[in-house]
Amino acid sequence: MIDLYFAPTPNGWKISIMLEECGLPYTVKWVNIGVGEQFAPEFLAISPNNRIPAIVDHEPLGDGEPHAVFETGAILVYLAEKTGQFLPFDPVGRSKVRQWLMWQMGGLGPMLGQHGHFKLYAPEHIPYAIDRYAREAKRLYGVLDRQLADNDYVAGADYSIADMACFPWIQTYKRQEIDLAEFPNVKRWYEQLKQREALRRGMDLGRDRINRNPQQQAQAAKILFGIEQKD
Amino acid sequence: MIDLYFAPTPNGWKISIMLEECGLPYTVKWVNIGVGEQFAPEFLAISPNNRIPAIVDHEPLGDGEPHAVFETGAILVYLAEKTGQFLPFDPVGRSKVRQWLMWQMGGLGPMLGQHGHFKLYAPEHIPYAIDRYAREAKRLYGVLDRQLADNDYVAGADYSIADMACFPWIQTYKRQEIDLAEFPNVKRWYEQLKQREALRRGMDLGRDRINRNPQQQAQAAKILFGIEQKD
Repeated sequence: MIDLYFAPTPNGWKISIMLEECGLPYTVKWVNIGVGEQFAPEFLAISPNNRIPAIVDHEPLGDGEPHAVFETGAILVYLAEKTGQFLPFDPVGRSKVRQWLMWQMGGLGPMLGQHGHFKLYAPEHIPYAIDRYAREAKRLYGVLDRQLADNDYVAGADYSIADMACFPWIQTYKRQEIDLAEFPNVKRWYEQLKQREALRRGMDLGRDRINRNPQQQAQAAKILFGIEQKD
Repeated sequence: MIDLYFAPTPNGWKISIMLEECGLPYTVKWVNIGVGEQFAPEFLAISPNNRIPAIVDHEPLGDGEPHAVFETGAILVYLAEKTGQFLPFDPVGRSKVRQWLMWQMGGLGPMLGQHGHFKLYAPEHIPYAIDRYAREAKRLYGVLDRQLADNDYVAGADYSIADMACFPWIQTYKRQEIDLAEFPNVKRWYEQLKQREALRRGMDLGRDRINRNPQQQAQAAKILFGIEQKD
């Protein structure tokens, strides 16, 4: 059995999608990041970066002690290797999936994260920072669009963990003020993936727990970013 | 033979360190990012994100066509699998290396990059952004310091690609105004790694090509960040 330490965020959904797609049974351990549960010592022992999601596999490959995994990219590869799914076995196909997974981990995720921060959460309106990350977000959408012009899926002909890593971030396109019409290949891929039932189940996890109470959101921003919100 | 598309930056050095450490012969293809050579169509075919470094392996595993790899995390894993070095074979050890490699890819690298941008390159002085990334940089140093309190190397008892991914970024500590004395385990690890001859050869690659001409640097900033430098 796998424990999934989870909150409903794009990074969290990467892993709930994968668990639904590969059909592994899992137990959700809710981590309320808005009140700081990610800083509890018990959680730090599992996730040394104090971030969700993380997993604990109680039946790891090699039959050892329960194995904790943090960082979404590492969790996706771990689960792919455990189940033999969504990561090709041939060296070149495997390498391609890893390249686009790393592109999501080092580029798309962090940069959309910064854009979201300055656009939606920062207490000051800072045009330079908003422009910087808006430009980078568009550039990254352009890179993905070119790739999807020649490939059905992010890393080639087959659906893989690279798609699962990108989807929940692309799903934020409205809040990021990205017009999908400018990126027709991304739009085609996005609409196609939305038809997958397992992906939809993964994306639905915890949606009813997203806190939309403004006062609690302000408190959460303070905990997450160390900042006071503007009124 | 491996072609290394390279410029002397922390991300570039990750790969020159690995190539020196694993003893694979390679040819350096210099990419002058200060004048925009990363936007040439020939380079885009190798590196779809227009970023250095990238490699082309002319004798890939599986004996197929030359195989191009972009994103440093993917290059490191590719070379580790090709040579059977610096990435353990047992599933748990392998998973640990991947976790810290992903932590570098998704956290340490991008966040130190943003800190460097706002502190050193941005044409406007924006205290909120500088503080945000300075705080995040210190938090990440703290995470690494805790990990290195219990482990000789970043991902455990053995030197691995996770160390090679972190080292060139930690090496920027002075410009990031990080006091290593506050992170004694990082300092111990850093001093220890500096003794490795292969790592030093990797870190020396291209150092004599770093452009310190202020006018050319201003032009480079325009190309890299799309911004005009302040005088």
